[in-house]
Amino acid sequence: MHQRTTVYQIATVDEESVPHVRSHMHRDILYPVDSPERPVILTTTDVRAPKVTQMLRNSRVELVWRLAGSQDQFRIAGFAHVVPSSTHPSYDAFKPASYLDLSKFAEHGFNWEKKRKEVWNEMSGPFRALWCTPDPGSHLASHEEQKNWPQSVPKLGEAKTAEEKKNQEISLQNFALVFIEPVVVDWVQVGCVPNQRTKWTRKGSTGEWTEEIVVP
Amino acid sequence: MHQRTTVYQIATVDEESVPHVRSHMHRDILYPVDSPERPVILTTTDVRAPKVTQMLRNSRVELVWRLAGSQDQFRIAGFAHVVPSSTHPSYDAFKPASYLDLSKFAEHGFNWEKKRKEVWNEMSGPFRALWCTPDPGSHLASHEEQKNWPQSVPKLGEAKTAEEKKNQEISLQNFALVFIEPVVVDWVQVGCVPNQRTKWTRKGSTGEWTEEIVVP
Repeated sequence: MHQRTTVYQIATVDEESVPHVRSHMHRDILYPVDSPERPVILTTTDVRAPKVTQMLRNSRVELVWRLAGSQDQFRIAGFAHVVPSSTHPSYDAFKPASYLDLSKFAEHGFNWEKKRKEVWNEMSGPFRALWCTPDPGSHLASHEEQKNWPQSVPKLGEAKTAEEKKNQEISLQNFALVFIEPVVVDWVQVGCVPNQRTKWTRKGSTGEWTEEIVVP
Repeated sequence: MHQRTTVYQIATVDEESVPHVRSHMHRDILYPVDSPERPVILTTTDVRAPKVTQMLRNSRVELVWRLAGSQDQFRIAGFAHVVPSSTHPSYDAFKPASYLDLSKFAEHGFNWEKKRKEVWNEMSGPFRALWCTPDPGSHLASHEEQKNWPQSVPKLGEAKTAEEKKNQEISLQNFALVFIEPVVVDWVQVGCVPNQRTKWTRKGSTGEWTEEIVVP
């Protein structure tokens, strides 16, 4: 579908200290109104995925973003916060006022549910349909079962049948935002000889960044 | 340098349950003589990198391999084993006879040190030089310092000066193999609508695989 969409990999840890990692589509970078030096990365997930349980239990994540052209690698360590539908039970676990950067958005009355619907609406119809399947990772007797799944879900306001409306509701109920607040950014440039590496580390809750050149 | 080399990302966990992930170059897939259904993935590292400490403490890793053409994603969970120089102190931590698949190699007298030197020799000269730098991640006053680092290290048998020989020794002493024994392989095909996902899970120490079609 979106062959050229920007993709990175996000690592999480489960309750048995086993690491997990998978590709995510990048959706946006957001800046608090008065703190442009505190950008937050936005990606999305299915709220039923195991990584959501992992992030709710241990919000420490690391993201690796490898640029297709230059082969540069950004490693971004930080905290992940899941924003499901405001009617979903796990929404109660989302406490933006207490987070590093999201508190800045909360102060200015950021509308999480509005953003969630906007991002959902911006995706393609076949993409929106990915949130209408049975639970991700659950057993299928055969690929035949998949033939009855919706192949496309219309944007909000464009549903023409009761079935399309139902699919919109299901997809939106499973669709969640994931915000990542960075605390370490580690950039390796491999296009030069020798490679160059720069590391930015965030100090405490003030959000001040220190820059250091380090050995690649 | 090797723009088209196959690259995947490997996630590890540190002692504070923080996940880490970075790109690795794929080197080889090895099969035990009498057990072709137990392939082992081979990649390489600098023995001084923090991931080595993480792998020695917690050998559980997950690797994500995203194919550039089809965009298919393989997630491979397993155990990582580091093989440094046989003269390096951490070599003692490598106990292949007790591992899932490497025990099969050990039974047939696999020569780890020989393989390590072969893989090192197969890399390009500028790549071999990457193992001659000061400790990865350590502080640099400026990129100027990097100008004195060796830019290329010759293959074994091809060193012409005492300095080249010294660089070979340093590079080889820092160069380590990483073997990954898979226990779960999770394959998502995104080229078809709807996406298809197949999961193979290994049962116990017999190495038998079960295959399951699951919801993407």
